[in-house]
Amino acid sequence: MGPVRPGPDAKAAFAPAAVEVRGGFWSTRRRVNGRTSIPQGPELLESAGNLNNLRVVAGLAQGEFQGAYPFVDSDVYKWLEAASWQLAGRTPEEDGPLAAEVERIVSLVAVAQQPDGYLNTWFQLLKGGERYQDLRWGHELYCAGHLIQAAVAHHRATGRRELLDVAVKFADHIDSVFGPPGSGKPIDGVDGHPEVETALVELYRETGERRYLDLAGYFVDRFGHGLLGGEAYCQDRVPLREATDVEGHAVRQLYLLAAATDLATENGDAELRAVTERLWAAMTAAKTHLTGGLGAHHDEEDFGDPYELPNERAYCETCAAIASIQWSWRMALLTGDTRYSDLIERTLFNGFLAGVSLDGERWLYVNPLQVRDGHTDPGGDQSARRTRWFRCACCPPNVMRLLASLEHYLASSDGSGLQIHQYVTGRYTGDLGGTPVAVSAETDYPWQGTIAFTVEETPADRPWTFSLRIPQWCGTYRVRCADTAYDETDAPVTDGWLRLERTWSPGDRVVLELSLAPRLTAADPRVDAVRGCVAIERGPLVYCLEGVDHPGGGLDDIVLDPGGPLADEHRPDLLGGVTTVTASGHRRPRTETGWWPYAPADAQAPATEPAPVELTAVPYYAWANRQDGSMRVWLPTH
Amino acid sequence: MGPVRPGPDAKAAFAPAAVEVRGGFWSTRRRVNGRTSIPQGPELLESAGNLNNLRVVAGLAQGEFQGAYPFVDSDVYKWLEAASWQLAGRTPEEDGPLAAEVERIVSLVAVAQQPDGYLNTWFQLLKGGERYQDLRWGHELYCAGHLIQAAVAHHRATGRRELLDVAVKFADHIDSVFGPPGSGKPIDGVDGHPEVETALVELYRETGERRYLDLAGYFVDRFGHGLLGGEAYCQDRVPLREATDVEGHAVRQLYLLAAATDLATENGDAELRAVTERLWAAMTAAKTHLTGGLGAHHDEEDFGDPYELPNERAYCETCAAIASIQWSWRMALLTGDTRYSDLIERTLFNGFLAGVSLDGERWLYVNPLQVRDGHTDPGGDQSARRTRWFRCACCPPNVMRLLASLEHYLASSDGSGLQIHQYVTGRYTGDLGGTPVAVSAETDYPWQGTIAFTVEETPADRPWTFSLRIPQWCGTYRVRCADTAYDETDAPVTDGWLRLERTWSPGDRVVLELSLAPRLTAADPRVDAVRGCVAIERGPLVYCLEGVDHPGGGLDDIVLDPGGPLADEHRPDLLGGVTTVTASGHRRPRTETGWWPYAPADAQAPATEPAPVELTAVPYYAWANRQDGSMRVWLPTH
Repeated sequence: MGPVRPGPDAKAAFAPAAVEVRGGFWSTRRRVNGRTSIPQGPELLESAGNLNNLRVVAGLAQGEFQGAYPFVDSDVYKWLEAASWQLAGRTPEEDGPLAAEVERIVSLVAVAQQPDGYLNTWFQLLKGGERYQDLRWGHELYCAGHLIQAAVAHHRATGRRELLDVAVKFADHIDSVFGPPGSGKPIDGVDGHPEVETALVELYRETGERRYLDLAGYFVDRFGHGLLGGEAYCQDRVPLREATDVEGHAVRQLYLLAAATDLATENGDAELRAVTERLWAAMTAAKTHLTGGLGAHHDEEDFGDPYELPNERAYCETCAAIASIQWSWRMALLTGDTRYSDLIERTLFNGFLAGVSLDGERWLYVNPLQVRDGHTDPGGDQSARRTRWFRCACCPPNVMRLLASLEHYLASSDGSGLQIHQYVTGRYTGDLGGTPVAVSAETDYPWQGTIAFTVEETPADRPWTFSLRIPQWCGTYRVRCADTAYDETDAPVTDGWLRLERTWSPGDRVVLELSLAPRLTAADPRVDAVRGCVAIERGPLVYCLEGVDHPGGGLDDIVLDPGGPLADEHRPDLLGGVTTVTASGHRRPRTETGWWPYAPADAQAPATEPAPVELTAVPYYAWANRQDGSMRVWLPTH
Repeated sequence: MGPVRPGPDAKAAFAPAAVEVRGGFWSTRRRVNGRTSIPQGPELLESAGNLNNLRVVAGLAQGEFQGAYPFVDSDVYKWLEAASWQLAGRTPEEDGPLAAEVERIVSLVAVAQQPDGYLNTWFQLLKGGERYQDLRWGHELYCAGHLIQAAVAHHRATGRRELLDVAVKFADHIDSVFGPPGSGKPIDGVDGHPEVETALVELYRETGERRYLDLAGYFVDRFGHGLLGGEAYCQDRVPLREATDVEGHAVRQLYLLAAATDLATENGDAELRAVTERLWAAMTAAKTHLTGGLGAHHDEEDFGDPYELPNERAYCETCAAIASIQWSWRMALLTGDTRYSDLIERTLFNGFLAGVSLDGERWLYVNPLQVRDGHTDPGGDQSARRTRWFRCACCPPNVMRLLASLEHYLASSDGSGLQIHQYVTGRYTGDLGGTPVAVSAETDYPWQGTIAFTVEETPADRPWTFSLRIPQWCGTYRVRCADTAYDETDAPVTDGWLRLERTWSPGDRVVLELSLAPRLTAADPRVDAVRGCVAIERGPLVYCLEGVDHPGGGLDDIVLDPGGPLADEHRPDLLGGVTTVTASGHRRPRTETGWWPYAPADAQAPATEPAPVELTAVPYYAWANRQDGSMRVWLPTH
């Protein structure tokens, strides 16, 4: 039982299916998350002061509020959510110390909660208990949302109610305070940072209490009416139902859209569904970086204009990648379309995974696509260097909770079959309207393109459809099953789903082979930032060059020869084991420009022979794990 | 008598020469400044609350502090400086109302000043009179600097001492408070925004009091020692003498460098001179936009990495262009090199002048080089739309003071001759060590390349050198004088100066003809933002396309054909009279990309025939004067 469990009346195409990840790429990343990142959380939250704030509020300690932002409580809740998912299905022997930590911190939260359900250490300690006076920036409902999500996770994963009781009490308090004009509730308002909305939908799903769903619906529809001052930043410029493009602060926009998708799912709200489909398409068509990263601007962490997708100033907050995955998964379940899981795959392997170091101990808040040779790093949260923890520490526990619950984003089922959205080594279990089906898979994806499935559990006498997502990047593939073989010219693929319908028997094998030949990718010419450039990709992975692999001149003058061969090689010794891609290139001779770098366009290029350089590209997710230095994803071709 | 008057012991190559602008391009811009912009100042400062703050401090009114920043007083002082320069040489009949306004506001400032010389309405009204407790952000010395500059201007322009007395009292107060450890002064510190340093040098020049020069020197050398927390933003990361590149907040960096140049000039400090030469070259070689605009980042208004010169996210604050001109002029006088006036010309005609509308009533704070067709404007100070006034209103009065004192940035003289740095219709008067020389000029520059000089005043029996700057952008020119003619193949040009040395007679004519053929300009390939693009230039002017001239499809798909002809035409009816440049181009057919804008690099382009479009370029300075819409300077060539 993971996050995003549509209720019994949901109008979704698919229900999430259970997956047990047993090995391979994501198993390794989840092991680092479970053994290093999550266990380090309490100590980091202690040293940053988050836990002590709760103790002070609870009367268990003396001290002043610590932290720079009104949302520091949410770091605790996101960590609790991550740790709860981590505990799911584990025995006390496996995760006893972690379970004890969770129990300790859940108790602290419960004791810190006010008698009427409210809890926010910033307002209680710094603002004299004043509540809901600064909805634009106060993050009180945002924090409540993360508390609720943690509580749902804790209940689903461990069966324990302590945190769920806290969440219900807080939600009832919010429901007693917020409501539309005429409802008799004291405040008609929304939080400047959407988040409580998805949480309330999940609380409805967990408790069956419809008030929470209605409250979420009320909040979603009250954005865009000037309650927050009318800024796009806070999603308040235009009502969501009238929006034609994503805008404003990226994480806020994406959390709000995830909630809208939840509401469309639970309520069968066709208008809201159309909005989410429209905005998702607008976002991916013109406001998404190749890595799946979102957010073009540093100064408001927001979306830019269409096709404004800078490289070194790509913001691409790690939290925005996570929010995109959370939203897209809801869209995948609602609509049944593969493109949502196409984007999830791209984001998982690139824009998301770059946010955590290979050792699980250091983080990136922003994820640029270029770092120049002479880069002067600003340090702090917006550093292009991996950092132990942030002043605004939203991203690290967000990464932890997604990795800990990742198995719930990989597959789905409906009455007629099982759909494989993401390829992992493990066991996929679906539900054909009460009848279980299970398929195991073995793969070294994304290093190898072969995924071998074995049917393990199936009704003996009833056909069902085994659906495999053919990734949007994949032009060449083969699939073999017991009785037949297909390739890209004749496979029964519609809308990205390769659908194999038959009566299956245990032991039946299906082998999918996706061609992972390295490829060069170009952008729509309206993406000005990458004119005259290509990117190297292989399978779902975006590649980059790092300065450390190109000594003796850096990356600023590198040119890739697009006619040259691309060769891949698996290097078990490098970066925890990666497949590199080599390409031909050269270093552009520098023209002497003196004090002014602009010259007549018809000036002759220097006669100097360019110096050939073998280019070695590594997966983007693995960058900045060896040394600080230059990096680039998009490579000039002349 | 204008700004920047090196003292009698200055080690400068040149002294500024007096110029009377009598007609032509800059005369028009200065007339709008004098008749519209400056006269509107008091009303705007009244409605924004700046003047009332002073009245409240003076006990002449009741009320609360108005304004969002601790530096709002400086808007008043910059306006006073502008108005003072405007009054220079005018009769009461010409500028009586303005003189009365200046007198009124000078009196207000004098009454508002504290008995010990201090004045800052933010700290007096909001901070309980607490002083110098927040040097990093408080802007107290910054405001004092603008007050001192206004006072020097007021004294030089009108001969009146009222404001100079206020400034001297404030400067003496500062000198009694700030000093190095061991000096007995209570505070060893600097202001987070350099500005008081140049002002103190000018106060030294005006009063002869060397303490002010020494205080300026102390301040300049105390940056970079962590007194402000060590941030590059405040110029505190590294001592200026050790710096190798410009960094941090652009205006702060440039004001500090202007002060360093002043100190090198007055003290003959060779090390400081070398620093300023080194940083100027680094800035122009890799951190200056084609327009002369400076500052790559919105979020800290700061310089980016070398060659990080974005288009739509160019910050290019108008104040940074002004600061660049102020610094470069000091460098031009100190060194005698033409390149500093090359940059001044480029900045004046482009990055600076774009900051004010043609009617003198609306302003740009940021000056992007691209606005997309689908641009969503943030509004506020950072809008790409011209705005009546800003919350942070630093730029408008800064533009006013530069335009009002512009005639002092155009020419210089030394013992051996007169140097023409900028070409205007008017009269240039130099001083050959006590002997005056004067030359008049007629020109329709920058629309026409012919400048006709007539010697008006000259010693009869003594040769001197008449030096004309051959602009860095100009590859073809001719010059004729009484007895000879030259072109670019044989002219006596060294280091950018065309030097005509002879014994002149009144009535002697010199005619310079600079070729203004439109040209295409490309950037160093390390400027990633403009790869595959060219810009149209003509003479000193950078051109741009505006959406309003290209109906039926906007600018996002425009491609310029670099092999096509460029034609120029003077359009007296357009934008107050501009020369347009037309070029051949087409609109790139759009590829259907669906939801994902990235595709294999070897994908075939669509077979659709591109639609030819005649491109009409207008001078960049004149953009956004007709309607809000798209704009671009750099144009793709494929």
